[in-house]
Amino acid sequence: MDDEARAQVPRREFQGARFTDAVDEVAREEPLEIRIAGVPIAVTMRTPGHDEELVRGFLVTERVVDGPAQIASVRPCSDAAEGNVVQVVLHVPVDLARLRRNFYASSSCGVCGKATLAGAMACAAPLSDGVSVSAEMLYALPARLRAAQEVFAATGGLHAAGLFSASGEAMVVREDVGRHNAVDKVVGSGARGVVLMVSGRISFEIAQKALAARVPAVAGVSAPSSLAIGLAERAGIALIGFLRGSSFNLYADASRIAGNP
Amino acid sequence: MDDEARAQVPRREFQGARFTDAVDEVAREEPLEIRIAGVPIAVTMRTPGHDEELVRGFLVTERVVDGPAQIASVRPCSDAAEGNVVQVVLHVPVDLARLRRNFYASSSCGVCGKATLAGAMACAAPLSDGVSVSAEMLYALPARLRAAQEVFAATGGLHAAGLFSASGEAMVVREDVGRHNAVDKVVGSGARGVVLMVSGRISFEIAQKALAARVPAVAGVSAPSSLAIGLAERAGIALIGFLRGSSFNLYADASRIAGNP
Repeated sequence: MDDEARAQVPRREFQGARFTDAVDEVAREEPLEIRIAGVPIAVTMRTPGHDEELVRGFLVTERVVDGPAQIASVRPCSDAAEGNVVQVVLHVPVDLARLRRNFYASSSCGVCGKATLAGAMACAAPLSDGVSVSAEMLYALPARLRAAQEVFAATGGLHAAGLFSASGEAMVVREDVGRHNAVDKVVGSGARGVVLMVSGRISFEIAQKALAARVPAVAGVSAPSSLAIGLAERAGIALIGFLRGSSFNLYADASRIAGNP
Repeated sequence: MDDEARAQVPRREFQGARFTDAVDEVAREEPLEIRIAGVPIAVTMRTPGHDEELVRGFLVTERVVDGPAQIASVRPCSDAAEGNVVQVVLHVPVDLARLRRNFYASSSCGVCGKATLAGAMACAAPLSDGVSVSAEMLYALPARLRAAQEVFAATGGLHAAGLFSASGEAMVVREDVGRHNAVDKVVGSGARGVVLMVSGRISFEIAQKALAARVPAVAGVSAPSSLAIGLAERAGIALIGFLRGSSFNLYADASRIAGNP
């Protein structure tokens, strides 16, 4: 069942030396643009649904307003980008230039999933390096990532990212309270590798960072989002989710798994 | 052991009807300001350590540069805010105004932990509502949050946040690929409650959103960061981590746990 919060995608499930094809449900991820008095002041990557609540909460918790009573109305722009634009009217004047400066940080190049993917691909050619990895090698990565997580072992409070060679060797592993920061530390180390593995979910931004860093495979312990899968497909990046024990789900680019028909 | 990536904090561990006091290690969280040619273009909340790698990776994966060869140098500003400022020199010209517009999104009001906390408290009075909750009630929350996570059950790919009444009733539960969005959806729903519970870790931004929404207790299934604890202490917010089964760790404001000496 497709609805606004989830999407059905094909995936190939690997278990040991066997694989089966099936259909999986993944969380949808789309940009949402918030406009005040017609001026775009923020774009956030979100799961569609309860958009008006999201915007009301954002305005209060980011202190754009002093309280919900200062919000006159929050309405979707029905004519704009697939419902991904919300128009706000306030009862109080706000400094729109300052808000735009403070919040309009976005990796997305448009305000619908399709435009975001097109924008991301406009800045980077697809990878066509012919690199492949074996399922057997992938199965070894979660334990190697975990073994290198020194601070997580002490605190339980960090994301990790690691870059692994084609033979499964950990080239570099980094930890951070921010999932994107852990990936940036790995990329910035200058280490080379073919699989970027993260300790959690795979969002659009993680896939986009892998593309910018020219890494041909991204793996995660947990689920990918719909938009991460869309980008991996277009970019020629293998997208591997739920990598645990001797199994994983492959969501994009089957050609990169060695021996996979 | 305190080091740049972790800090020791006191915490009270509740197990059933008993509690013990101990010292815990938590992940450190501090803002990092990135300057190019002296101009601040981004602030990110990160775990200190490998800062130069973080900045090099950020510049590449966010496409500020076309590749690492365009980066001349990345150095900490030794005279600035506790090592939380990094100075970049590039071999190529970049549009600094555009970069600042695209990346300078920050909830932090300064570039060290202390200034961030002072800035957050400057915009909001501490909570002093006298509300307390029982340990018994808190033990019931993880199962209630999970039971309400419809999309997670299908996809495994979403964060959740919920707002609970003093008797432990779920007033509203929302899911999103972004942890902050789930909290904003809860706050924006207009529901009232006394405990904000999140499905993962508790970062500074989560604590700050709770303060802005005037919620007296924040609970998480996983660990808090050092800066989240610092804010909760100053704001008079109970901070409850590792809430699983019949146990949790209390990191701030013991007065809010009913019957807790």
